[in-house]
Amino acid sequence: MSATSLLIVAHGSRRPQSNTEVKQLTQIIREKACSKYLSISHAFLELADPSISDAIDQCVEQGAKEVLLLPYFLSAGRHVQQDIPEEVAKKQAQYPQLKIQIATYLGASDAIADIMLSLVEKT
Amino acid sequence: MSATSLLIVAHGSRRPQSNTEVKQLTQIIREKACSKYLSISHAFLELADPSISDAIDQCVEQGAKEVLLLPYFLSAGRHVQQDIPEEVAKKQAQYPQLKIQIATYLGASDAIADIMLSLVEKT
Repeated sequence: MSATSLLIVAHGSRRPQSNTEVKQLTQIIREKACSKYLSISHAFLELADPSISDAIDQCVEQGAKEVLLLPYFLSAGRHVQQDIPEEVAKKQAQYPQLKIQIATYLGASDAIADIMLSLVEKT
Repeated sequence: MSATSLLIVAHGSRRPQSNTEVKQLTQIIREKACSKYLSISHAFLELADPSISDAIDQCVEQGAKEVLLLPYFLSAGRHVQQDIPEEVAKKQAQYPQLKIQIATYLGASDAIADIMLSLVEKT
């Protein structure tokens, strides 16, 4: 059994449907990869629950030894470069034995260009 | 020769590097697909240039008969549902013979879940 939890981290929105989109994406990722991870869940940086802090607590309660955050962001702005790492640093101090890592943000993926082009074909 | 122009539409940021990321993405898309389109360029909804309006003018000056906007957004919020369509409606009134379409926004792509999982492997 894996002891790694994945945490999809989105900005969070005042618009409930946008947060629902993140939950739905998390559910799709869970269906694809649940056999590989202890848990796959989502968290919001602000404006919605669960917070990154609460979500990491939840991973620890479930027995995670490692948490990998996947930033669902398009650009390497303040949220990616500063806010998420700061949240992680706080939790790392709280759980010194937990391995917490932050993956590259979505927008940095080489595959984005191909996806954008695939959207053309669906129009 | 295609008479269709692609326009990558991003939000725009006060942070120049975020706008540069959009320009770089556009360049990658251009390298992949320039043989299929009259032009492939970018525009920003706000906070940066070129505007959607100016970018569509540019497409028309280049001889486009059709402009396809590709929204580089993760959620179907106000920008995707309202602001971009409003900009397009204004330009459609200005150029009644130009075919202007808006593709599905990036976040709606089924491929996003796989990309998120591929980011895990790169961490």
